[in-house]
Amino acid sequence: MENGAPAWKFRGNGGLSAATVITVRGVLYELMANLNADDGRTVVPLGHGDPSSFPCFRTAPAAEDAVVEALRSGKFNCYGPTVGILPARRAIADYLSCDLPYKLSPDDVNLTLGCKQAIEAILTVLACPGANILLPRPGFPCYDAFAKHSHLETRYFDLLPDKGWEVDLKGVEDLADESTVAMVIINPGNPCGSVYSYQHLKKVAETARKLGIMVIADEVYGHLAFGDTPFVPMGVFGSIAPVLTLGSISKRWIVPGWRLGWLVTNDPNGFLIDTGVLKSLKGFLDISSDPPTFIQAAVPHILEKTNDDFFSKIICILREAADICYEKIQEIPCVTCPKKPEGGMFVMVKLNLSLLEGIKDDQEFCLKLAKEESVIVLPAVGMKNWLRITFAIDPSSLEDGLKRIKAFYGRHAKK
Amino acid sequence: MENGAPAWKFRGNGGLSAATVITVRGVLYELMANLNADDGRTVVPLGHGDPSSFPCFRTAPAAEDAVVEALRSGKFNCYGPTVGILPARRAIADYLSCDLPYKLSPDDVNLTLGCKQAIEAILTVLACPGANILLPRPGFPCYDAFAKHSHLETRYFDLLPDKGWEVDLKGVEDLADESTVAMVIINPGNPCGSVYSYQHLKKVAETARKLGIMVIADEVYGHLAFGDTPFVPMGVFGSIAPVLTLGSISKRWIVPGWRLGWLVTNDPNGFLIDTGVLKSLKGFLDISSDPPTFIQAAVPHILEKTNDDFFSKIICILREAADICYEKIQEIPCVTCPKKPEGGMFVMVKLNLSLLEGIKDDQEFCLKLAKEESVIVLPAVGMKNWLRITFAIDPSSLEDGLKRIKAFYGRHAKK
Ligand SMILES: Cc1ncc(COP(=O)(O)O)c(C=O)c1O
Ligand SMILES: Cc1ncc(COP(=O)(O)O)c(C=O)c1O
Repeated sequence: MENGAPAWKFRGNGGLSAATVITVRGVLYELMANLNADDGRTVVPLGHGDPSSFPCFRTAPAAEDAVVEALRSGKFNCYGPTVGILPARRAIADYLSCDLPYKLSPDDVNLTLGCKQAIEAILTVLACPGANILLPRPGFPCYDAFAKHSHLETRYFDLLPDKGWEVDLKGVEDLADESTVAMVIINPGNPCGSVYSYQHLKKVAETARKLGIMVIADEVYGHLAFGDTPFVPMGVFGSIAPVLTLGSISKRWIVPGWRLGWLVTNDPNGFLIDTGVLKSLKGFLDISSDPPTFIQAAVPHILEKTNDDFFSKIICILREAADICYEKIQEIPCVTCPKKPEGGMFVMVKLNLSLLEGIKDDQEFCLKLAKEESVIVLPAVGMKNWLRITFAIDPSSLEDGLKRIKAFYGRHAKK
Repeated sequence: MENGAPAWKFRGNGGLSAATVITVRGVLYELMANLNADDGRTVVPLGHGDPSSFPCFRTAPAAEDAVVEALRSGKFNCYGPTVGILPARRAIADYLSCDLPYKLSPDDVNLTLGCKQAIEAILTVLACPGANILLPRPGFPCYDAFAKHSHLETRYFDLLPDKGWEVDLKGVEDLADESTVAMVIINPGNPCGSVYSYQHLKKVAETARKLGIMVIADEVYGHLAFGDTPFVPMGVFGSIAPVLTLGSISKRWIVPGWRLGWLVTNDPNGFLIDTGVLKSLKGFLDISSDPPTFIQAAVPHILEKTNDDFFSKIICILREAADICYEKIQEIPCVTCPKKPEGGMFVMVKLNLSLLEGIKDDQEFCLKLAKEESVIVLPAVGMKNWLRITFAIDPSSLEDGLKRIKAFYGRHAKK
C-alpha cells in the first residue's frame, strides 16, 4: 500500500446513473451516437422540442432586447431572492391572470430554472414516505426521473388515443388510494399534441377534488394551440381543486436555453398553505439554484413587449408543420396517427411492425432510421411501439425528414 | 363533504422546510425583517459575499460584452448538452490548467449553475447509505443543507484560529472511519479569510490518501488572495488523492447573479471513474437544470478577454477593505479577530459577551445590531458567539458600518 493506490472508499450513488433513469437527453445521445458520419445530408431532428436553431423560429427581438437591457444596466449581477425578484413575479402573475376568473398575486409565483426545475421542486416536496403520484401515459420522462430521485411512487393512467388523448378519468379513480397526493396533466400535450377542452379540464378538477389530490398542470406549451380547441389554463378550476401551474418562456418564445420558468399556485381557497406544501416549496427553493438575476429582470419586458405578430407567426408555422406532418404520415404505411395535433410540438404515431422486415421494435426502428437516414425520432415513453415525432422544425426540413422515413419504409417493407 | 372541502391528502415534505435547514439566505431574511424602517440611513450589508451592487465592483466590460454577443448571435437560444457546451468546458480546462502540473481536458469539466449546484451535485452523488462526509467548522451552510437533503451524514473537523485557520488534520484522522467518503476544504476560506500554503494543502491531500477519501476543494474564491500567501489550487495534488474542484465566475468576476460555475475532476490516476463517481455525476447532471446556453457560450470570451487590470483593481479594493476591517475591529473592544484576512471576502471575529450588557448571544447581537444600526452581520455557522463579517463592499461603506458597530458597542458596553 505504501506506493500503490489506497482502497478508495467513495462510491457513486448508482441510483442516479443514466442506466436507471430514462431521460430524453439520454435517448437522444444514444441515437446521435448511431448517426452515420458519412451521410452527406444534414440530420433532421424530429426528436426533441427545440426549434430555436431554425431562422424562422428565432425569438422576438423585444425578448432579446429585454435581456440585453437588463444586463447592460449593471443592476442585476447580484444574487436574487429565493422566490425570484418581485417585478418578474408580478409580471408573470399579470400575464397568467388574463385568462383566469380571479387575479393572481406575485406571492403565488415562484421563478424557476425553466419548467424542469418547477417539476423537480414539486415532486421533491410531495415525496413523503409512502406517497404516490399519478402520471399520464404516454408522458414526459422528466417526471419519472425526478420521482425516482425522490423515492416518490409513480402510477400511470392512460391517455386515450381514440378520444383525442383525453385522460382516462375512470382509470385515474381506480389507481388512486389514500396515499395518492397529485395527478399530472400536460396541456397542450407532450407527446400527444392534444389540447383539452374546458369541459374535460373541469372533469379533471372534479376528479381530483373527489380523490382529495392536487392537479399539477404542466403548461409549458401554453398558448401553442393552433386547432379548433382554444387553450384553457387549468388554473381556471383552481377553486374546485388546488392547481399548481408549471410553465416557462422556453416554448412560446422559443428560448429553451434561457432557462426561465415558473411554479404558480392557483389556489384561491388556500389549501396549499394549510397542508404545508407551500412552506416546503419555499424550503426547496431556498437551497436550490435560481435563474440568473438579469434574466429574471428581463421578464416584465419579455412578457409585455413581445408583440402579437411574433406569436401569430409561430402559431402559423406550427399549424403548417402539423398539417404537413399529418398528411405525409398518411403516405407511410407502417405508421398511423390517431389524431391530428392541435397544439404543442409533438405528435404520437403507432408503428405497425408487421409491415416491416427485420425490425423487431420501436427502439430498433429509431436506431436504424438514425443510421440510414440521419433522421432522429424517439420511441414514446410508456407505450410500446409508438413513436413521438416533433413537427416543430422548419417546414421544408420536416418534409425532407418525412420523405426519408418514407424511403426507409420502402427499403424495409415486407415483400 | 358535498359542499365543504374534501380532506386533501397532499402534504409538504417537512424535511425541506426552512425551519430544519439553515441557509445564509434564511438568516439574512430574518435579519432584514428586523431592520428599522424609520432609520434614514442606508443599510450596510456585511452579511453575504456579493459586492456587485457597488459601482467600484462592477464587472469587467469584456465579460458583459461576451454575454451580449452570445445572446445577439441567436445561436444559443437552444437547450444545452448535459455537461455543458464544449467551447466553455475547453476554456475552463485551459484556465485551470495554467496553475497545474498537468493539463486538464474538457472532459474533466462539467458546467453547473454556479458553485452551488456543483456542491449539490457532488453531495447527492456521494450520498450512499451509511456514508459520511467531513466538513470544516466554521463552514459554509450550503454543504449542510444539501447533505441533509440527501441523507448524507456530516461530521465536523475544526479550523484552527491560532494557526491561521488551518485544518486540524489530526482531528480529521480521528473523525474518519470506514464510511467516510470525502472531506471538504474551502480555499480561499469562507468564512475565515484564510489562504492555505502549498505545504498545508499537500498535507491535506496526504491525509485524504491515507484515509482513502477524496478532497472536495471549494475554490469559488480562487485567485482572490491579497496577502502574503499565494493561491494554490488543490488540483496540484490530484495525483496524491482525487480532487474535485468546485468553482465559478461569481466571485472573481463579481457576477454571482450570472450563475455560471463548474465541477472539475483533478484526477490524473482515474480513480473517480473506477469507483463510479463520474458516472453518477453525469446521471445527476442529466436530470438537473443547466446554466443558460448563451451564458455558457460567453465563457471562452469571459475567461480569455477579461484583462489583468480588472483583476488587479478588485484585488486592490479587497486588500484595502481587509486592512480597514482589521484595523477598525481593533477599536471595538467586544470583538477580536485572530487573523487578518488574506483572501476571499470574509473574516471571522470572536464576540466577547462579558463586555456587553443585555445581549445573551451572537444571534441577539446580530438582531439588535440590524435593528439599531441597520448593519447586517451574520453569526458564524458552527461556532458559538463568533461572527462572520464581509469586507467585500465599497470601502467607505465598510468604514461607516464598522463605525456603527463601534457606536452599538458604546451603547451596550457593560459599565
Ligand atoms: C411537458 C414538458 N414539461 C416540461 C419541459 C421542460 O421545459 P423547460 O425547458 O421550460 O424546462 C418540457 C420540455 O420539453 C416538456 O415537454
Ligand atoms: C464557500 C462558498 N461556496 C460556494 C458558494 C456559492 O457560489 P456560487 O454563487 O458560485 O453558486 C459560495 C457563495 O457565497 C461560498 O461562499
